[in-house]
Amino acid sequence: MKKVLLTEVNISEGRDAALVNRVAEAIRRFPGLRVLEVTSDADHNRTVLTYLGEPQHVLQATQALAATALELIDMSRHKGSHPRLGAVDVVPFVPVRGMGVAEAVEVARAFGRFMGSRGVPVYYYEEAALHPGRTLLPEIRRGEYEGLSEKLKDPQWLPDEGPATFNAKSGAVVTGVRFPLVAFNVNLRTRDLAVAQRIARAVRHSSGGYRHVRALGLALEAEGMVQVSMNLTNYTLTPIPRVFETVCAEAARDGVSVAGTELVGPVPLAALEEIVRHYLQAHKFSMSQVVETALLDSGPGDPEPCPA
Amino acid sequence: MKKVLLTEVNISEGRDAALVNRVAEAIRRFPGLRVLEVTSDADHNRTVLTYLGEPQHVLQATQALAATALELIDMSRHKGSHPRLGAVDVVPFVPVRGMGVAEAVEVARAFGRFMGSRGVPVYYYEEAALHPGRTLLPEIRRGEYEGLSEKLKDPQWLPDEGPATFNAKSGAVVTGVRFPLVAFNVNLRTRDLAVAQRIARAVRHSSGGYRHVRALGLALEAEGMVQVSMNLTNYTLTPIPRVFETVCAEAARDGVSVAGTELVGPVPLAALEEIVRHYLQAHKFSMSQVVETALLDSGPGDPEPCPA
Repeated sequence: MKKVLLTEVNISEGRDAALVNRVAEAIRRFPGLRVLEVTSDADHNRTVLTYLGEPQHVLQATQALAATALELIDMSRHKGSHPRLGAVDVVPFVPVRGMGVAEAVEVARAFGRFMGSRGVPVYYYEEAALHPGRTLLPEIRRGEYEGLSEKLKDPQWLPDEGPATFNAKSGAVVTGVRFPLVAFNVNLRTRDLAVAQRIARAVRHSSGGYRHVRALGLALEAEGMVQVSMNLTNYTLTPIPRVFETVCAEAARDGVSVAGTELVGPVPLAALEEIVRHYLQAHKFSMSQVVETALLDSGPGDPEPCPA
Repeated sequence: MKKVLLTEVNISEGRDAALVNRVAEAIRRFPGLRVLEVTSDADHNRTVLTYLGEPQHVLQATQALAATALELIDMSRHKGSHPRLGAVDVVPFVPVRGMGVAEAVEVARAFGRFMGSRGVPVYYYEEAALHPGRTLLPEIRRGEYEGLSEKLKDPQWLPDEGPATFNAKSGAVVTGVRFPLVAFNVNLRTRDLAVAQRIARAVRHSSGGYRHVRALGLALEAEGMVQVSMNLTNYTLTPIPRVFETVCAEAARDGVSVAGTELVGPVPLAALEEIVRHYLQAHKFSMSQVVETALLDSGPGDPEPCPA
């Protein structure tokens, strides 16, 4: 398995466990696929299914999952507190290993054509967007399912695939590609929230900082500290060590020391490469030197053929 | 595949490619095993076969490989420049992932009993040694194949498994366990070899340094630099960042700066964990957060069952 693609499929059902289970079953029978999480939220009435594997397996599994969800979910009866457009609401594909954004976009487009052929209007977003106004999910989802019938009459909102007519049962689907996101928090030994807020402004793109950083300053009441909470949206162009060193330098300016950091949730192996290169000055180091990568490259995507 | 064991089997044949190929074939048919390298040296008349996989698969494959090598190699005709005791000369097992030294020792002992049952005297070395005088390979191999007949008459050299009688065709085998070794070199911006030699003495165990460091100072003539060349023999107890920071501090004392470092050859994922924790102060970081580890844990060691 030289290439690994991850997806987080958001479907509009989070209360009917039997229904969710039938949808999840559709992906569980695909060999070489690894299901990381199936998380339902009753208030949101929404389930997120996260899985990864070889790109073609992920595409096939996602089509099977979507077909099941389209059959079982009726949006005309759906209520929930989370914004949504359709039964299969959002399907982001995330290139994790051995593939770039462009190759993941091909998978998203293949999935989009599949959904279009099933009579569902499709919008491409983020890295797969075909229109500048369609990169951000909240923009596309504005008005939600209830406003979709009117939205589809607006020439600005002609779908990228599928019919431009309202599908009452299934709504619309948003699919696309995003780079793996790294959630990185730095805790500072002060109770002064202004310090964390100033540093967040210094490093984030929106106020003059790094291109691929979103950041907020937060109070950690229980710890008696403050935190610079960040999302790094492209660890290749804006690597973790560079951002961390900038936070440290800005904190030192205020005489504040770093208590520790948190890398939250899943991290692609490639995002750690620059940490080793930077801090050890190991200029030629590559994660392909990691012993276990030999197993990934021969991995479950290429199962042994069964005897005839 | 939650556990990964690696082995580097050294056999005493490096000239007869057809023979080497027949030996290598014995492991290639094992599913879920990954062959990293088969390297023959004609002067040494020796081949190293490196492969990894789930521990029980590695054991079975190594037994199959050894049985083939015992059948095909005749030590009474062997000539080569590398020290050796037997047809299957040295078999170190290296726990790479999800298992400790003790579990790897069980595999080495099972392999030792197998070789003993085939009429080959067996010595356990390094972490699998049963006698204090048998930890180091050169000690066990002293006198080589040619001296083995006499050696076996010495009560001090009774084998750990198998007959205490000389096996002219197969010689003896040395098997055991070693912790994964990290080869780590630091290049210094000076031509003064004495600086590298002094730092090597400062960090290595034999002259008062860290418990699990072996080190040498070398000249890099072509680069006009010197190098502290190190083997870290236990990255858990003597982690990479601690050793690197000590080298940097000692170099700074002489006003010499670090040009760069090299992590040479394969590195277990676990050896990099402390680099992330140390330099990012990410105290709770674990390599289990790496996305790809989900694939390793469901990996080729557990192939999908074939339909009946």
